[in-house]
Amino acid sequence: MHPGLSWMTPGRFTERLPLVDAWAWLDACPDAMGTEAAPLYQAFGRVLPAPLTFPADRPERDLALVDGHAVQAASTLGASTYNPLFLTIVPKGMPLTAGGASVCHAGETLPSGADAVLPVDVGEAVGTALEVCDAVALGFGVGRTGQAARRDGVAIEAGRRLGAPQIALAASLGVPQLIVRRRPVVTLVFAGPKPPAIEALCLATSALVARDGGIAHCARRHLDMARMLSCVAPADLFLVVGRSGWGEDDDAMHVITAAGGRIDHHGLALTPGGSAGLGWLGGAPLLLLPGDPLSALVTYELLAGRLLRRLAGRASDFPCPIQRLLLSRKIASPVGVSEFVPVVCHGSSVEPLALTPADGLAGYARADGFLVVPAGLEGYAPGALVDVVTMPGHISRQEEL
Amino acid sequence: MHPGLSWMTPGRFTERLPLVDAWAWLDACPDAMGTEAAPLYQAFGRVLPAPLTFPADRPERDLALVDGHAVQAASTLGASTYNPLFLTIVPKGMPLTAGGASVCHAGETLPSGADAVLPVDVGEAVGTALEVCDAVALGFGVGRTGQAARRDGVAIEAGRRLGAPQIALAASLGVPQLIVRRRPVVTLVFAGPKPPAIEALCLATSALVARDGGIAHCARRHLDMARMLSCVAPADLFLVVGRSGWGEDDDAMHVITAAGGRIDHHGLALTPGGSAGLGWLGGAPLLLLPGDPLSALVTYELLAGRLLRRLAGRASDFPCPIQRLLLSRKIASPVGVSEFVPVVCHGSSVEPLALTPADGLAGYARADGFLVVPAGLEGYAPGALVDVVTMPGHISRQEEL
Repeated sequence: MHPGLSWMTPGRFTERLPLVDAWAWLDACPDAMGTEAAPLYQAFGRVLPAPLTFPADRPERDLALVDGHAVQAASTLGASTYNPLFLTIVPKGMPLTAGGASVCHAGETLPSGADAVLPVDVGEAVGTALEVCDAVALGFGVGRTGQAARRDGVAIEAGRRLGAPQIALAASLGVPQLIVRRRPVVTLVFAGPKPPAIEALCLATSALVARDGGIAHCARRHLDMARMLSCVAPADLFLVVGRSGWGEDDDAMHVITAAGGRIDHHGLALTPGGSAGLGWLGGAPLLLLPGDPLSALVTYELLAGRLLRRLAGRASDFPCPIQRLLLSRKIASPVGVSEFVPVVCHGSSVEPLALTPADGLAGYARADGFLVVPAGLEGYAPGALVDVVTMPGHISRQEEL
Repeated sequence: MHPGLSWMTPGRFTERLPLVDAWAWLDACPDAMGTEAAPLYQAFGRVLPAPLTFPADRPERDLALVDGHAVQAASTLGASTYNPLFLTIVPKGMPLTAGGASVCHAGETLPSGADAVLPVDVGEAVGTALEVCDAVALGFGVGRTGQAARRDGVAIEAGRRLGAPQIALAASLGVPQLIVRRRPVVTLVFAGPKPPAIEALCLATSALVARDGGIAHCARRHLDMARMLSCVAPADLFLVVGRSGWGEDDDAMHVITAAGGRIDHHGLALTPGGSAGLGWLGGAPLLLLPGDPLSALVTYELLAGRLLRRLAGRASDFPCPIQRLLLSRKIASPVGVSEFVPVVCHGSSVEPLALTPADGLAGYARADGFLVVPAGLEGYAPGALVDVVTMPGHISRQEEL
């Protein structure tokens, strides 16, 4: 009897590359991404190749940090509710001398001569006099020039992925645009899948490419695919989806070679996705992904996303949180093959979902995350602690709608 | 001596609402979001209010799952390399009878009469005969009608946030659009900040609103702000930023009331952000956020985002992973006030960043995440394990550029 389904153990691959070796291949691909200017509103999620420095001391001048009266601290010495002192209120903009006080608001430049701010609740104006019922320490309520940062000091470090705090800081420094790492261009060529699978994969992989910091260009197979491949615009990464197997219409290897590309490895010790390949086209890495939707999405997540994130200047790890959870049912997995297993989370325990080729995406779409059984293991016993990549969809299930 | 900076302990608030009570107020806001149709390419990240069901059995017909020959399993019984059997190859599309075999590819409908697929590597065509060197089990290589899912069974559960696997499944079912929860409209009114702080806040809060599933509309203060507020288009959430304190120009409370709104709570036991308020305008919740950029972003993260995510159908928790990490330096925090502390991560330990009002966003922009010291604690000792909300920016620092 034939022992298993051929999609799990493609018989024609004589040497199947272990997943860890595929990762090493991906991690060794050169990173020659340049930079470009991006207006701030387009800079979210981008990565700074060089630090952004402060264009001036911050604050640029001594500032009041609180609402109240600018004073010389020494003039308030000894003041208390039992022994109020009286200062003379001078108009705003005038230099301050001993015994004087000047109304000021948080954020305003401190008048010259002042060295502290008396908060509003400690001084009360009585005509042109200010009744002071507490002493204030030298420097209280004052932001000193350069206290927060010095001119040319680092405002945002190199390698930082820009989020709201960084973009807001850049805007508050008056910076109109930032020099950021260029977004990798990913050309997706759908060589195999037919409607509606091609629509499904085009939508899903384009969204995943955007999630991982790239720009997706989708192309459908032409009749003369080798010619088409050889004249597509330069890309930072090619993903050829479909026709990766050994059936009579599986010509992806052939057309990639005919287009001047090459495949370094064809066949991975991975399930699903065992017919994936790794190679080159026009100086850029090319990944051959299987055309069935499940295998295509799995190999995107396990292979393409990893390389793309690094090219985009991000960490190559999975972009979703990894949680250590308790396995509720055993997973049996063939030794020598890394197996992608989608799981459903129930609190701190996870249940593996069995995938069969007939499922298509039905199983994966129910999953809250996935784990990868390493090639060296026969699986996991029930109760094992496993590292699960949790996908954002799962979070909302805690919520009542 | 005046004990602290007034931004940390705004003296005029007689009763400051604890952060947990503010969360309870936010969590009690009614959720009356409706639904709308979204084409699939716009449905990523959206939430399904009702389950999507399978429009037909899946697979709809018995399918070949592997490349090979459709056969009757019984016809292969006893075949081996020592005792090959010979079947008659019949043209595609013909019904199959005992002793017949018909070429088939993975994904094709199985010919009638067939009950198994003999994989390509087990049968070899010799003229019009197929030489079979192994027996195949009944049902091998066949996806039975309804095996993966039954018509009207649940394809995507209600409450599921749609990611690539779900969108791809919907597309592969031929579904052109999905009924999803409407995106909450958030009207941001910048009442206080001046350029460049207003640009900084407009950019950053709009991006945070989008991150949390809302649509941001930004408005700047008019001269007659009460009139402006009373005639803005309906929104699902109002955020009024600035003029929240007790200085002479802090008129936000007044204009909200004059516009027909009300503030239920003004002043939170929170630092920074103590002058925030919670109320209502035109039947929708209204949050009053302080105008200094740091306090505005902190109160967005701790208050507004929580409510918005729930309105968008997501979990109200922080959308970034929470990690338990080791504190490298002590944090001293006033009892009775929840304190937002940005931190820098070094491996599994975190270092708190001191924030002073003069810093503006300089400290927060260096942070890899933040923690909140609960109001009941005086802080944490060095070596304490603390729960840190890690922001995506920090991940890329592990990478070499």
